[in-house]
Amino acid sequence: MSDAETYFRENRDRHLAELAAFLRIPSQSALPEHAPDVRAAAGWVADHLRGLGFPRVEIMPTAGHPVVLAEWRGAPDRPTVVIYGHYDVQPVDPLTLWTSPPFEPAVRDGKLYARGASDDKGNLFIAVKALEALARLDGGPPLNVKFMLEGEEEVGSPSLPGFMAAHKDLLSGDLAVSADGGMFGTDTPSLTVGSRGICALQLDVRGANHDLHSGMYGGAVQNPVHALVALLASMRGPDGRIAVAGFYDRVRPPGPEERAEMARVPFDEAAYKAALGVEELHGEAGYTTLERAWARPTLEVNGIWGGFQGDGLKTVLPAEAHAKLTCRLVPDQEPEAILDAIEAHVERFRPPGVRVSVRRFPGSARPYSLPASHPGQQAAAKVLKAVYGKEPLVIRAGGTLPVAEMFASILGVPLVFFAFGGPDSNVHAPDECLPLDAFDRGVRAYYRYLHELARSHPAAG
Amino acid sequence: MSDAETYFRENRDRHLAELAAFLRIPSQSALPEHAPDVRAAAGWVADHLRGLGFPRVEIMPTAGHPVVLAEWRGAPDRPTVVIYGHYDVQPVDPLTLWTSPPFEPAVRDGKLYARGASDDKGNLFIAVKALEALARLDGGPPLNVKFMLEGEEEVGSPSLPGFMAAHKDLLSGDLAVSADGGMFGTDTPSLTVGSRGICALQLDVRGANHDLHSGMYGGAVQNPVHALVALLASMRGPDGRIAVAGFYDRVRPPGPEERAEMARVPFDEAAYKAALGVEELHGEAGYTTLERAWARPTLEVNGIWGGFQGDGLKTVLPAEAHAKLTCRLVPDQEPEAILDAIEAHVERFRPPGVRVSVRRFPGSARPYSLPASHPGQQAAAKVLKAVYGKEPLVIRAGGTLPVAEMFASILGVPLVFFAFGGPDSNVHAPDECLPLDAFDRGVRAYYRYLHELARSHPAAG
Repeated sequence: MSDAETYFRENRDRHLAELAAFLRIPSQSALPEHAPDVRAAAGWVADHLRGLGFPRVEIMPTAGHPVVLAEWRGAPDRPTVVIYGHYDVQPVDPLTLWTSPPFEPAVRDGKLYARGASDDKGNLFIAVKALEALARLDGGPPLNVKFMLEGEEEVGSPSLPGFMAAHKDLLSGDLAVSADGGMFGTDTPSLTVGSRGICALQLDVRGANHDLHSGMYGGAVQNPVHALVALLASMRGPDGRIAVAGFYDRVRPPGPEERAEMARVPFDEAAYKAALGVEELHGEAGYTTLERAWARPTLEVNGIWGGFQGDGLKTVLPAEAHAKLTCRLVPDQEPEAILDAIEAHVERFRPPGVRVSVRRFPGSARPYSLPASHPGQQAAAKVLKAVYGKEPLVIRAGGTLPVAEMFASILGVPLVFFAFGGPDSNVHAPDECLPLDAFDRGVRAYYRYLHELARSHPAAG
Repeated sequence: MSDAETYFRENRDRHLAELAAFLRIPSQSALPEHAPDVRAAAGWVADHLRGLGFPRVEIMPTAGHPVVLAEWRGAPDRPTVVIYGHYDVQPVDPLTLWTSPPFEPAVRDGKLYARGASDDKGNLFIAVKALEALARLDGGPPLNVKFMLEGEEEVGSPSLPGFMAAHKDLLSGDLAVSADGGMFGTDTPSLTVGSRGICALQLDVRGANHDLHSGMYGGAVQNPVHALVALLASMRGPDGRIAVAGFYDRVRPPGPEERAEMARVPFDEAAYKAALGVEELHGEAGYTTLERAWARPTLEVNGIWGGFQGDGLKTVLPAEAHAKLTCRLVPDQEPEAILDAIEAHVERFRPPGVRVSVRRFPGSARPYSLPASHPGQQAAAKVLKAVYGKEPLVIRAGGTLPVAEMFASILGVPLVFFAFGGPDSNVHAPDECLPLDAFDRGVRAYYRYLHELARSHPAAG
């Protein structure tokens, strides 16, 4: 490692200059007029990987932006690692809130500022530079490495599942590593051991064939808003428990070790409430706030509407009312089974006098879980401890991490999150940045991690 | 009456021609560009009343369109009747659905088609022509008559309460008669003995200071939509009963006679459901549909909204949720007391983790009630029976009749509805019309009604 240490120190300025060149490409996938820039970024990173000595680099078409696929079989008897990242970036509005222009990278106070500096050009470039060091110092990676870099992450990765399903052999591996993500804090390393799944539906309640006069008809016919309200209220108790029969059937409650892991994560409730502007938190009794956000399932209304919403008053008895709902799921809940349970609940509690229909949204995802005891996590923990000088926290994501779910469900490959931005990186916001400390730790950590995986991780053989 | 019969028959063509001239003025109060037409209609009807011999006719300014006030003291020792009507009309969109242009009156199949033919130029002109007959045949009305004709009814009569409060003496009388309204059917006379009052409020539920990610925060903080839904659900039982403490305290349930009156009103439930497109009706148990719509109070959500309403899905935990509510009130409920009860309920059931505020809307109105036994109703019933050849039905309005409420609360004068359009008059819709039968019965009925009131109605003296 002392060679690597020297290498990264001596080449740091060049590395950051290269990253700056990458960051200057405004590859904003959400804006159709920037499609040429997205393709330019794909070309840039493909060229860069070729320049490092990757024997195979392809820009592979999808229904949308291409996937850059690179492969370096460094050691046939060693494991194969698939590193995921994305070369597209978020839009930059509102531009006026940026201290320096988003596509003119600038270093201030030990941070590199630019759109994509962290999410995800910076993080994927960290992995790329680790590969460079492996090539220059060791003659190539000590295991088999694939890069799968997409250009549509910021628009929901619409083409990726199809691409992965169509190229299972090309993408096969023993472990996936996501260079998209971040640490609990810039100076606080962490292992992400789970994220919640998701399923979603819309409830449409219909009464009369047109809005009615609330005076002439009020009391005589069912009001679809009241019907919807009664139905939604029947799904959740005042204590935050979901009252849909079967909802908790397959939930594995967090065990004592998992609860202890979560309890070790620093959490300042007063600061949390102050940041949200709420006087009290609320949720399922018997669990801590982090447990509720990370390890318990939810049923949340994301939107509701019906009748008159303008200023003042319109004395209408609405013809329709609607709500959108999502559930966040934990192991071993199955999205389709949860949607079935909700649909059965709706059927059972359907209020009289209205028609209620349930529409399922596409995009369900199972919960993701890779315990800290998994060899890929153990290797990561060992490396992070060495690089940061402290044990990583074991954390979870309350949201859904689609790429982890895709690797698990499409390829059957477990995924470890290994990325170095922190919560102060202003991801998706003005003044996005990457602390240079994170860059320095990141390249060293990736270099060590691939060595550690080569040494310790089981290979399919 | 045989003189009157002859008079109305011989003058019918002229009367209808005059009405047509009135109807040609496009006095649409909702459209600012038609303000000159609204004023022209006021001038037309004022001139017309002067022409009939009214000793006093004034076009009195208000904050909006003027009130035409006319007075003919026909008999100092007899009662004073204040006849209410309005000379403004609804807009005419969608114009393409009219068979003939809305401001070019046309007679087809025994009906006079034009915007305002029924609501309310036709109905008020019926009363005016009855006064003409009283002037020509009897030398003047057999009692004291005032006309109060406004030009803002179709925009909610914003200036009328202030006008009435400012001119209590001018408007004093023993009985008000509304020439705005209609009969149960063109051939089915009716007495309106009540309408429901109204009060309204908005509930605003606020959680975090911005929309949250439903994955990161779902389960940890209260969702304002769930809080609103729980609060609204707590206000109404599945049986349609309002669960707000005190809501029914002052409700006078309909007595056996009132229930018998309502039961006599023809009601075809199958046709009612078919017209609304619903498979079943729903409401408070123990009451018929008409009783629920006419004689029982309601609490209805007129609109609800919060979070994402677009296509697809946005996994947001909304920062806010809102609902607009109105209650329809029956004797002896007091609007302010009901609003107090709802506010107390909100306070008692306020879900944790959110702030809930209650905003009261202006425009509360008490329920209106004038029993069939009132001398003004008795006189109307006697006349209607004579003119239609059948007993009038005793009906109610589920909605609120603001003018009745204004006369009661501002002037302390009871109001009888005496108007002749029917439910097939297409009021507020394309092809508005007045059946010529209704016109013929109307002028005769008004002529007789004023004689009957002169004879039988008590005067303040």
